[in-house]
Amino acid sequence: MRELLYEGKAKRIYATDDEQIVLVEYKDSATAFNGQKKAEITGKGRLNNEITSLLFSKLKEHRIDSHFIKRVSDIEQLVKKVTIIPLEVVVRNAAAGSMAKRLGIEEGRPLTTPLVEFYLKNDELGDPLVTKSHILELEAATAEEISVLREKALQINEVLSNFFADLGIRLIDFKLEFGKDSEGQILLADEISPDTCRLWDKKTNKKLDKDVFRRDLGSLTEAYETILQILGGHQHV
Amino acid sequence: MRELLYEGKAKRIYATDDEQIVLVEYKDSATAFNGQKKAEITGKGRLNNEITSLLFSKLKEHRIDSHFIKRVSDIEQLVKKVTIIPLEVVVRNAAAGSMAKRLGIEEGRPLTTPLVEFYLKNDELGDPLVTKSHILELEAATAEEISVLREKALQINEVLSNFFADLGIRLIDFKLEFGKDSEGQILLADEISPDTCRLWDKKTNKKLDKDVFRRDLGSLTEAYETILQILGGHQHV
Repeated sequence: MRELLYEGKAKRIYATDDEQIVLVEYKDSATAFNGQKKAEITGKGRLNNEITSLLFSKLKEHRIDSHFIKRVSDIEQLVKKVTIIPLEVVVRNAAAGSMAKRLGIEEGRPLTTPLVEFYLKNDELGDPLVTKSHILELEAATAEEISVLREKALQINEVLSNFFADLGIRLIDFKLEFGKDSEGQILLADEISPDTCRLWDKKTNKKLDKDVFRRDLGSLTEAYETILQILGGHQHV
Repeated sequence: MRELLYEGKAKRIYATDDEQIVLVEYKDSATAFNGQKKAEITGKGRLNNEITSLLFSKLKEHRIDSHFIKRVSDIEQLVKKVTIIPLEVVVRNAAAGSMAKRLGIEEGRPLTTPLVEFYLKNDELGDPLVTKSHILELEAATAEEISVLREKALQINEVLSNFFADLGIRLIDFKLEFGKDSEGQILLADEISPDTCRLWDKKTNKKLDKDVFRRDLGSLTEAYETILQILGGHQHV
């Protein structure tokens, strides 16, 4: 029997025979608003597992390392074991969601330059926005680590926003998590999927991401399947 | 008749014969929680006018310039006319208020180093916390101005926290506003009073600031009068 190391809202992490490697199982659970909205959506785990695998592989082609090793089943992938840095790193190319609301900017308005935000990973506190000073005070990361996270986040944005643009999709914003491996190296971790990105059809502005679930805009799996197909993933009926 | 240039929650600004100088009248209004809690408190205007005058004069002794020229009556002072930079600059020596709550830090816990935060001055948006990136995107200030604001805020904290400490008072945190004069020079503006500072009695931890009003802890004028007397202000019966 596999040893469950951790269960989050969207994934379970299991030990493997290799101490440096863990198995990630993508669940069909959808949650939003810090867990206040919940649903089971058949197929969501498979879609996010496959989309994340494709995107981590794409980043690898651009020499951006992540914890990702390989996809091993519909809903499972092997990844390098890392210790997650307790920050959500958000990159925004256009105003949307909480940022648009907080700062009174019209949703969809392009930003003058990609903007990086840090949020403290803490469900109890509702993942508050934090400044560099807060991060240092809380010892969530060092000043040097903050610079590395910001730089990597912007590199990833460069690759992914161009990649999606060529496929007719606007990468509005996305959330990253990073971890440290056993040698202290900072690696991109967690997932990159429509759960963690805002992806809009460039022509129609149709939302093809978790906002479909958050705002009840239609079928989540249809939206995610669209993204998977655009990315050239396996066709499912 | 004096020309009213602006009326805020706690002050009225009038024109004078000199275009570069305005008259500030301190009102007796107390407001909290973005105006949701309100009261008229006789004597508050006089207390804040006098305390602000004393603190701006103290800063002047330390070569920190402000818009302050002189107190001209119980509730009025003359100040240099400035264009307010739309940021509230908060300096914190210990966790308290919104910051303690947002980050899950016990109120009163000293911070490892004084921490500067910026909030967008926008009542409609509830004065949201902003990072440097947000400030640049919103063009609320330039990168150079942000550095100047941060540096000046920390200098002011150095002077005021030592000054209060010698008088048996902990300066927990405070909010500053800055403006630009006609030559573009950045000057400390607005007020520094128990309305804009958290001031705790060092021995008893008794709150001697607007939290008395926010949290219904007793007489606001008694608390503010205590601060004024500690600062060596005029005795009122």
